[in-house]
Amino acid sequence: MKGVRVEAPATSANLGAGFDVFGMALSEPVDVLVVEEIEAGVVLEVSGYQVPESPERNLAGYVAGRLLEGTEAGVKIRLEKGVPPGSGLGSSAASAAGAAAGVAVLLGLEVSVEELLRVCAEAERLASGAAHADNAAACLYGGFVCVGTKGYEVLAVEPPEWLEYAVVLPEVRVETRAARRALPERVPLEVHVHDLARAVMFAAGMIRGERRLLRAGMSDWFATPVRSRWVPEFEALERAAVRAGALGMTISGSGPACIALCCRDEQPARVVAEAMAEVYQERGMRCMSFWGKPGEGVRVNGERLSNIL
Amino acid sequence: MKGVRVEAPATSANLGAGFDVFGMALSEPVDVLVVEEIEAGVVLEVSGYQVPESPERNLAGYVAGRLLEGTEAGVKIRLEKGVPPGSGLGSSAASAAGAAAGVAVLLGLEVSVEELLRVCAEAERLASGAAHADNAAACLYGGFVCVGTKGYEVLAVEPPEWLEYAVVLPEVRVETRAARRALPERVPLEVHVHDLARAVMFAAGMIRGERRLLRAGMSDWFATPVRSRWVPEFEALERAAVRAGALGMTISGSGPACIALCCRDEQPARVVAEAMAEVYQERGMRCMSFWGKPGEGVRVNGERLSNIL
Repeated sequence: MKGVRVEAPATSANLGAGFDVFGMALSEPVDVLVVEEIEAGVVLEVSGYQVPESPERNLAGYVAGRLLEGTEAGVKIRLEKGVPPGSGLGSSAASAAGAAAGVAVLLGLEVSVEELLRVCAEAERLASGAAHADNAAACLYGGFVCVGTKGYEVLAVEPPEWLEYAVVLPEVRVETRAARRALPERVPLEVHVHDLARAVMFAAGMIRGERRLLRAGMSDWFATPVRSRWVPEFEALERAAVRAGALGMTISGSGPACIALCCRDEQPARVVAEAMAEVYQERGMRCMSFWGKPGEGVRVNGERLSNIL
Repeated sequence: MKGVRVEAPATSANLGAGFDVFGMALSEPVDVLVVEEIEAGVVLEVSGYQVPESPERNLAGYVAGRLLEGTEAGVKIRLEKGVPPGSGLGSSAASAAGAAAGVAVLLGLEVSVEELLRVCAEAERLASGAAHADNAAACLYGGFVCVGTKGYEVLAVEPPEWLEYAVVLPEVRVETRAARRALPERVPLEVHVHDLARAVMFAAGMIRGERRLLRAGMSDWFATPVRSRWVPEFEALERAAVRAGALGMTISGSGPACIALCCRDEQPARVVAEAMAEVYQERGMRCMSFWGKPGEGVRVNGERLSNIL
């Protein structure tokens, strides 16, 4: 039986001011998908973290179904969920992007990464109620991305080679839909202008590899002040990260995971992750932590997707 | 008598989605200021375009007064206004930045460009009611800038060497204050997100010299749809610019001047400027046009300010 093995990593969206448009691929945790050709239809088996199993309600199943339209083929997907759902780490996007990449490569579909992104972004509407493409773009392209909301144009950037991230995920679950509903429908003009400049500086910092710009760019007035209410000990966490040497810290996606960025030559991300985790441990709260270099995004049979399609 | 000669160019703010944070220095028109040391106080003489002459109401006079605080010196400024006021070409910022640069260099003040920017931004509050620093930053730093609204951090970028601009200014005057009042106080969320991505792509296009990104980045949903009402024949102008080969066209600052960007190797800006001017000429309307490469910003005695301070 023909099959491919896909690793689809967690991703971190927003990164401060880049609400709904910035994303960065992490190197772990990952969803692992084994995609095999079958007679017809979509069969889904899920292990690891618990997520809906019916192909209609699971993003991997939905995306596979969309890509099979117009073909005679079917696929069986064994999804090992390694990216915790409801964490702010792009769990649904990992499943969607992983399935999209697996089905496209397995069946030799003539699609571009851009087309896969469009399908994944629409799948995300199922998960969050809004067709945002930030996590999916980061997962499909790897590195740092900015994705336009009209037409899903993508700016893909290889982060500076010294950049590392530290992620800490407390044991609280945040529903993406609820986190989105808490945000106002209209943005005060001064917030709009403030966040515009921050987002531009952050992206410029990624492109130029300038720490000053990443530092200045990693704060926002729109989403984080609202969403930090759901992150236990947010202020203490931010203080700990910055004191440990991080360039900045913010909420990952809609949280509750938080992400700090650091320059390896100043302070390895492991140390920053430990300092952040300590904030929870000292208060008797459980958390997970991850750190590493920004990732390459989805890999199919060990190869970066953008090298295949 | 000790004196310096300053050339302070027109600038174009916003450039699409970068509302209040993007600016680019043009190479012409320019304000020319001759600044000389006198016993005490600020004396101002204005020629060229008509602007307020009293030092309290003229930005050059205001900025000079602020910089003289705590010194024993006085200055006489002869300002030859070459940048038309009320045009959207940063006329007030040119006077402010020119005076700031002239006074600082003449008196050997120990100030940084950042500090001059702060004084100029506050002076802009006099002109428009909001302390925006986009034009002043472009004038002081030259090239393309993004300026943060909290603390005035500046991202300064040397535009791609092939970049040219074409500006057409119809004979209509727009008051910056009125143009600002017409904008809503709150930005719909989808507009915020759309413009975030566009601004990031535009800046990335400037940094990387990628035409695709400049093309994608030069549109906005916030200010231009409102302000284009005051620009005669805006749609026809945009069509003409793009048809002539421009990467895009938008309103310069609060208008009514419009600016198109182009890649010299595809189409010289002169041709684009002619195509735009023709739109007005065909309708029997008068306009001015300018074109060239992005400028170096304020020059004092022929030298770029950032090379002096």
